[in-house]
Amino acid sequence: MKAVRVHAYHEDPKIDDIPEPTIQGPLDVIIKVGGAGVCRTDLHIINGDWAEAQNPNLPYVIGHENAGWVHEVGAGVTNVAVGDTVILHPQPSCGLCLACRRGRDMQCEAAFFPGLSNNDGGMAEYLRTTARACIKLDPSTNPADVAALADAGITAYHAVRKAAGGLFPGTTAVVQGAGGLGHIGIQSLAAITSARIIVVDRNPDALALAKQLGADETVLADGNHVAAVKDLTNGLGGDVVFDFVAEQGAELDAWQMTAPAGSQYILGYGGEFRAPTLDFVGGEKNVIGNIVGTYSDLSELMVLAQAGKVTLHTKQYPLDAALDALHDLDAGRVRGRAILVP
Amino acid sequence: MKAVRVHAYHEDPKIDDIPEPTIQGPLDVIIKVGGAGVCRTDLHIINGDWAEAQNPNLPYVIGHENAGWVHEVGAGVTNVAVGDTVILHPQPSCGLCLACRRGRDMQCEAAFFPGLSNNDGGMAEYLRTTARACIKLDPSTNPADVAALADAGITAYHAVRKAAGGLFPGTTAVVQGAGGLGHIGIQSLAAITSARIIVVDRNPDALALAKQLGADETVLADGNHVAAVKDLTNGLGGDVVFDFVAEQGAELDAWQMTAPAGSQYILGYGGEFRAPTLDFVGGEKNVIGNIVGTYSDLSELMVLAQAGKVTLHTKQYPLDAALDALHDLDAGRVRGRAILVP
Amino acid sequence: MKAVRVHAYHEDPKIDDIPEPTIQGPLDVIIKVGGAGVCRTDLHIINGDWAEAQNPNLPYVIGHENAGWVHEVGAGVTNVAVGDTVILHPQPSCGLCLACRRGRDMQCEAAFFPGLSNNDGGMAEYLRTTARACIKLDPSTNPADVAALADAGITAYHAVRKAAGGLFPGTTAVVQGAGGLGHIGIQSLAAITSARIIVVDRNPDALALAKQLGADETVLADGNHVAAVKDLTNGLGGDVVFDFVAEQGAELDAWQMTAPAGSQYILGYGGEFRAPTLDFVGGEKNVIGNIVGTYSDLSELMVLAQAGKVTLHTKQYPLDAALDALHDLDAGRVRGRAILVP
Amino acid sequence: MKAVRVHAYHEDPKIDDIPEPTIQGPLDVIIKVGGAGVCRTDLHIINGDWAEAQNPNLPYVIGHENAGWVHEVGAGVTNVAVGDTVILHPQPSCGLCLACRRGRDMQCEAAFFPGLSNNDGGMAEYLRTTARACIKLDPSTNPADVAALADAGITAYHAVRKAAGGLFPGTTAVVQGAGGLGHIGIQSLAAITSARIIVVDRNPDALALAKQLGADETVLADGNHVAAVKDLTNGLGGDVVFDFVAEQGAELDAWQMTAPAGSQYILGYGGEFRAPTLDFVGGEKNVIGNIVGTYSDLSELMVLAQAGKVTLHTKQYPLDAALDALHDLDAGRVRGRAILVP
Repeated sequence: MKAVRVHAYHEDPKIDDIPEPTIQGPLDVIIKVGGAGVCRTDLHIINGDWAEAQNPNLPYVIGHENAGWVHEVGAGVTNVAVGDTVILHPQPSCGLCLACRRGRDMQCEAAFFPGLSNNDGGMAEYLRTTARACIKLDPSTNPADVAALADAGITAYHAVRKAAGGLFPGTTAVVQGAGGLGHIGIQSLAAITSARIIVVDRNPDALALAKQLGADETVLADGNHVAAVKDLTNGLGGDVVFDFVAEQGAELDAWQMTAPAGSQYILGYGGEFRAPTLDFVGGEKNVIGNIVGTYSDLSELMVLAQAGKVTLHTKQYPLDAALDALHDLDAGRVRGRAILVP
Repeated sequence: MKAVRVHAYHEDPKIDDIPEPTIQGPLDVIIKVGGAGVCRTDLHIINGDWAEAQNPNLPYVIGHENAGWVHEVGAGVTNVAVGDTVILHPQPSCGLCLACRRGRDMQCEAAFFPGLSNNDGGMAEYLRTTARACIKLDPSTNPADVAALADAGITAYHAVRKAAGGLFPGTTAVVQGAGGLGHIGIQSLAAITSARIIVVDRNPDALALAKQLGADETVLADGNHVAAVKDLTNGLGGDVVFDFVAEQGAELDAWQMTAPAGSQYILGYGGEFRAPTLDFVGGEKNVIGNIVGTYSDLSELMVLAQAGKVTLHTKQYPLDAALDALHDLDAGRVRGRAILVP
Repeated sequence: MKAVRVHAYHEDPKIDDIPEPTIQGPLDVIIKVGGAGVCRTDLHIINGDWAEAQNPNLPYVIGHENAGWVHEVGAGVTNVAVGDTVILHPQPSCGLCLACRRGRDMQCEAAFFPGLSNNDGGMAEYLRTTARACIKLDPSTNPADVAALADAGITAYHAVRKAAGGLFPGTTAVVQGAGGLGHIGIQSLAAITSARIIVVDRNPDALALAKQLGADETVLADGNHVAAVKDLTNGLGGDVVFDFVAEQGAELDAWQMTAPAGSQYILGYGGEFRAPTLDFVGGEKNVIGNIVGTYSDLSELMVLAQAGKVTLHTKQYPLDAALDALHDLDAGRVRGRAILVP
Repeated sequence: MKAVRVHAYHEDPKIDDIPEPTIQGPLDVIIKVGGAGVCRTDLHIINGDWAEAQNPNLPYVIGHENAGWVHEVGAGVTNVAVGDTVILHPQPSCGLCLACRRGRDMQCEAAFFPGLSNNDGGMAEYLRTTARACIKLDPSTNPADVAALADAGITAYHAVRKAAGGLFPGTTAVVQGAGGLGHIGIQSLAAITSARIIVVDRNPDALALAKQLGADETVLADGNHVAAVKDLTNGLGGDVVFDFVAEQGAELDAWQMTAPAGSQYILGYGGEFRAPTLDFVGGEKNVIGNIVGTYSDLSELMVLAQAGKVTLHTKQYPLDAALDALHDLDAGRVRGRAILVP
């Protein structure tokens, strides 16, 4: 089959012809890929940024945002059958450790992450995953339309879901960064909370889209945005500030935009958070970390997606054009999310 | 192997010689039973009370409180190995449905309950369960000492754990019924909450034991116990009332002993709860249902047990003496919990 | 001033000319009434149903759903000033007991309830309340438009707010009874949760209105409604069932419509709830009591109201026509809520 | 009366003879001081560190940890009477703003902080506070024995109370810094949670005391303490790390000692917290800010204190010896807490 493989860091992946994956354990599932999202993390992988943390044997197939159809199942698989349309949680988990038993998939002791850890990902015709990664979809769903919810989507949704208990009428949520994840975050906030939503971005087009997706107010990140957010919130800031940027100083702005007793949710990465410990004491403010969401989060997000409450802007490319997609992403030419369709 | 089987309702089970269970699926685990608790539910099963709800094919092996050693494992089992000492969650769950993924094992869509549903239980030399039921113990643990925590134990612990978030200094927990489950409930309350504990029972010996296990006050259930509990609580009642009896009017007493904005937790069964709907509105009081605990609950309870914070009173019988154990239980001759040791 | 006073039970109140209320303590506030809701509880009061519980000295002024303008303030009042437009929480609380300090106003040890307890209510030109009951509104608000949110509104909102943490995408909320409280409940569910909303009522017009207010499905309460709700929910029922009726058997239907691990929220009254204790154990189901909401609830509800997300259908009467309003309500001739305007 | 007043920063306070405070508003309460704790914050005040944030008019009386007897009450005070023994929440709050109504006293819009903000504190014979600061104690309580719970105590208790919901059997709490606040934190952890408690301090005597107060393990802060804590926790760290130091690099150690999905609770101040935003994403870790506790927290802590579950080590000085107490504290000569007794 055809697959997009990284052979060496700092150089373009290649489209190789490799054997199809096979069932290795009783809970394994082989997916015929219907759509594979192209993510900024893929550029980071190619750049070698994850080499140390994940240490995969090269060459390997990238692609961690996948949806498609069940092609083959192991002997212990009972939740999906050949032919089912599915979206895949990016990190198959064991279902046996205490973290799994408490519904905290991402802290699974025996998880792997196809396309990131030492396992082939989904920019290929077929992918090996496990039963615990599969969520069955309405058969009429086009996998390419939803694939990007598998990782970008649940990351944004997960953070909003964690914060939702405190986002009731009269509270304010600030979204910093209305890009790929951020625009799902805005829709999630509008769908499951009743907070007022203020969106901050340096791109006026992104702000215009944010308004359509549910933002109550938008603020251009022009250097005065911290003050502008405070002006909109009686000088206090947001009760929750979702920081989808978290680099180049945005992570420090977010802290300034967080109200007393409020929380900064970090979703982006690249920067360094810094604050006097007195800030935490005097203001009773928090910084909350956020990783990819759980299976349950993805399941809920698909309910919103199938109800039309969360939609994705996508640009589709054939698998052969994977390099175009990666280059377009790197050059800022992708509006919404690039999706490979094998 | 030898096994205690129900052949017909309303008559004593028989000790039969039957084939050992075998691995049927990749997640199956065969346990060499080290201890099987004898529970009042076994008497109910023999009496036919569960015939309709669970509809097992007779004859079948009873016994749903089991601990022992791993004897054989299926191809997909990774959390335990042959020889491990284990306690078993009573209801193996699928790990794939949404309830399982949220940590709510008891609402699993594909669960079974060996010894209760149409599956052989643990009053036998060997038992078939699955990987998701197994909790590994310190190898020095004697399974017979802990088996009863597998069902009675986690039922009591589960209810206390659910209530614990509201049981802080200054609050009062009332325990009605200091028997098999109740005495674990008292110890769990003392271990994980800081509520004042009032125990109500009709048996003075049970109250004396309750005092040793952590009760702050005891009240003899002599007909004036509702008033006595109110006297101890400024006329209000308990913030949480754990009703381990829930029959013969106790379920109505418990409601009277529940303070405004408080909750009655029902754990026993047999009676009918009744209250004017105005009681729920005027007092903002709740009635909370409680089923067997989760795998995570059992895991936490084993931490308490291994630290000596929850202990069981047991009376051991050889497997051949199963009928003696059942008769003793029926006749009220068992102090603590009867355990069969094959 | 003119005031609607009950002189004797089982007979019509009278419109009396009585002295205006005066400041009695430093936190007292005198309100010029702008709108006073007419509630079914007023009919109950006239009928003597509350005589024992509240034991007021007759004659006294009824009316517990009030909004208006601040007329005079005590020496310790700092949150409102003469001329402010306000809506009033129905139960002024002390702010000093532990329940108040925890935000649980309705469990205040020293509360009173004008128009229900031994204190004059709001069907009059002026009303005495306290600073802790006042929520300041936009000066352009017409008190008569929002008065009914003061009691009926926060009762419905309070229950939805308590349940909201569990009403995420993929869950189902059932509303039984789409009348005065129910139609605010439906709007609150649509505004602050993402549950699917099923509404059950015996009145087709109420169901048609429910659809406009946010119901996803409606079910006519024609005797087959329990089965109909189960058909809509894979045989399980609602995760939360809000029972705004709670009499004449509806309280038992609601229990049947509640899914395993779900909760019936009781808001109506008049009936008797009954269920085998085994139901609570086997299904792990709960019954949750609900009283009037808190000050914080009313504050949040006013945010929704001022954003147009919760609206009231009202029929206004001059204060002199109070008996017409009461008779119309009793005869079922009021669509939405009757409001007296002094 | 005699009072300890700061006249100028960077110089010793003076013992002045000033008029007694008088009732200014209907909720005011005058306290005859029975004990006033001497806190490191007092040294910071004298040093001018709070000059900008609180900007008091000099001279003013310091002392923010107070207990005593009610001497006089305003016209609206109903919760305490002359002669009552009381401990005082350090920050009287208005009871009218939304933060107060939600039980979040420390976010009160109109609060003041006697002895810190522009209001005289408790190192004097009499102190003016308000009804909302008073918690009535058993009349036999010696105010000097409990005064330090009023600020140091509830700060430690508040953080533990917030974390308690996640500190169940099998989890680990790490306490960094077993000094004045830390030793109350350890006792609170032992009293209201079931976590294993690991205490880190550079002082072997403090560790010995920690063991007596409930620590399961102690670790000397000798430079290898981060590794030592990881060794004790399967290489993961604590689920919650309470950082009572938060300066001189301790605030960075605490982050390293925090397990994935865990939280660092900051209580000390003086340092700067720093971490790559990737740490928050990859590990899903949090940093939680903590200010002084609420009235409800203080009320719960007094329940523990009166049950002997939280005790204070104190060293008493007469009011005239205030400078000795301050100098002893500054020089590290106070074991436990210095208390002035007028």
